[in-house]
Amino acid sequence: MTAGTDLYAVLRRIRPVHELSARAVEDGLAGTPLTVPLRAVLERVHTDGAQTVPAIARSLYVTRQGVQSMVDRAKELGLLETRANPVHRRSHLVALTPAGTRLFDTVHAAELARLDTVATGLDPADVAAAVRVLDQVVAALEALTTTGRSTP
Amino acid sequence: MTAGTDLYAVLRRIRPVHELSARAVEDGLAGTPLTVPLRAVLERVHTDGAQTVPAIARSLYVTRQGVQSMVDRAKELGLLETRANPVHRRSHLVALTPAGTRLFDTVHAAELARLDTVATGLDPADVAAAVRVLDQVVAALEALTTTGRSTP
Repeated sequence: MTAGTDLYAVLRRIRPVHELSARAVEDGLAGTPLTVPLRAVLERVHTDGAQTVPAIARSLYVTRQGVQSMVDRAKELGLLETRANPVHRRSHLVALTPAGTRLFDTVHAAELARLDTVATGLDPADVAAAVRVLDQVVAALEALTTTGRSTP
Repeated sequence: MTAGTDLYAVLRRIRPVHELSARAVEDGLAGTPLTVPLRAVLERVHTDGAQTVPAIARSLYVTRQGVQSMVDRAKELGLLETRANPVHRRSHLVALTPAGTRLFDTVHAAELARLDTVATGLDPADVAAAVRVLDQVVAALEALTTTGRSTP
């Protein structure tokens, strides 16, 4: 068994976790006007503060057009607003409105409560180890994958 | 910090790992007739042996129609074949051909070699811990998410 074979055991599990966690998030959004992608955009702004559409797209590995659609929808819903960007005249900053912050906080608090249940029986040291492994994988794969590749 | 908040740090990293590993796999398929989804179908059959299209779809969290397209394509390429299913007259078993086995083995060996590089510096105990955490997350989320939910 090589280190690569051992690590592959982690990567084989990524897709099931990705699909199942998306479904769990979607279930938790019932009764809100949010979809999973829309929630993801709100989360980026919540976590990193007001930012441009291209910045959000890069951090979510999605297209700018996709993010712009989400931002337009969120603005209609009163959850996001745009403001002038002091460092880039044409690329506005996207920010949460107070209503957007309240909705995201409510949704996310419920998600974390459900995750408390999911985390039952997990060794906190194992969870910390998993974060280290995934961080290393992201860093190494970002270095490995084709430079200059355009975001799909 | 709750256990749920700590576990969320793992889940937040799933999407970047998912996207980046898909791109790395895709890069590795250059020069082969395989796409990432087609490779995934070959892998399921390689790992679990001859199985039906619905079984493959369930394990990949995709639609039967999607898997059927992949199987049809793989049959054209001479990589998969179908055979009669002794326990289900109408749902054939999908199996790798010798050519399909050779191609998958070649592609996967190269992937594991690249993963040896990615795994450099990772503590094997951390990697084993990550597998435990992800297995627990899959099991718990499968129990949590809506029963009877149809595969998208």
